[in-house]
Amino acid sequence: MQLQTTYARAIVRKYPEQVVIAIAKDAQGKYNPITLGWTMITSGRPPMMAISVGLGRHSLGAIRRSREFVISFPSSAMADDTLFFGTESGRDMDKLAVRATETQPAAKIDCVLLSDAVANFECELEHEMQTGDHVLFVGRVVAAHVNEDPSVGRLYTRGEGYQLGGVVSS
Amino acid sequence: MQLQTTYARAIVRKYPEQVVIAIAKDAQGKYNPITLGWTMITSGRPPMMAISVGLGRHSLGAIRRSREFVISFPSSAMADDTLFFGTESGRDMDKLAVRATETQPAAKIDCVLLSDAVANFECELEHEMQTGDHVLFVGRVVAAHVNEDPSVGRLYTRGEGYQLGGVVSS
Repeated sequence: MQLQTTYARAIVRKYPEQVVIAIAKDAQGKYNPITLGWTMITSGRPPMMAISVGLGRHSLGAIRRSREFVISFPSSAMADDTLFFGTESGRDMDKLAVRATETQPAAKIDCVLLSDAVANFECELEHEMQTGDHVLFVGRVVAAHVNEDPSVGRLYTRGEGYQLGGVVSS
Repeated sequence: MQLQTTYARAIVRKYPEQVVIAIAKDAQGKYNPITLGWTMITSGRPPMMAISVGLGRHSLGAIRRSREFVISFPSSAMADDTLFFGTESGRDMDKLAVRATETQPAAKIDCVLLSDAVANFECELEHEMQTGDHVLFVGRVVAAHVNEDPSVGRLYTRGEGYQLGGVVSS
């Protein structure tokens, strides 16, 4: 039985929600990561992925300027970096340097991969559309990478207040 | 350390992936559900959600025609219905009737809610955009509903081959 309620009270039933880290080169030339929970695949052939980035975020200008970005699936061990990338702004700091996060060069675009992530997808910007207080970016995947360790699992937000961690089948 | 590979080999590292069931009234007047893994929130104020629906799917015409739809978060107990709604077409059958799925009327749009779901969101179509082999629909949430039982959890695809089930924190 469903009970009508407010959106705010209903949407907290969404967890666990996967997170990704999107990385784009900004106007200062640094590779800037942002943590995002609002992401999906949006085409199989050609492969495309979508992300929603809040208006006013530093990453908005970086993606629009560079027109390419990496979508990284952080591993369950990357909760601290992931929380930092999602709650601090790259406007005044080099987030990857502050956290000493291990990276390696992307293959086809001017960006970096997160070495400890589950997987990384290099994307070229195909579309953007404003949706309310966010901008929805669609990228075409031009290269893909996986962690050499197939046992690493993805990171999720498990509940309100940035409860980040892994999940297993119940 | 990341190893470059094909998209097909990298994307199977995505699991668990949440699923939703989108419901829209079709040209025959029936409420047609489709299971989708490609979905995200895309605005906070006003609340908006996005779904990607494959070209050629019966739901594509239903959403375009009715310009409104429900996004339902199936519970972990709804794996059988969810698999059915994702692998059968509503072109020639009434999927909700065949499965005898319990529904109740939506409050603000001409659609139905899934009574046993974790939550249901009534959406009015705001935008659509073709992205490769899918159409990305953005809906503005105009009403929200939750299961009276707060302990029910969401359903996820846990691996290749439609392995549907619940997850818990690891």
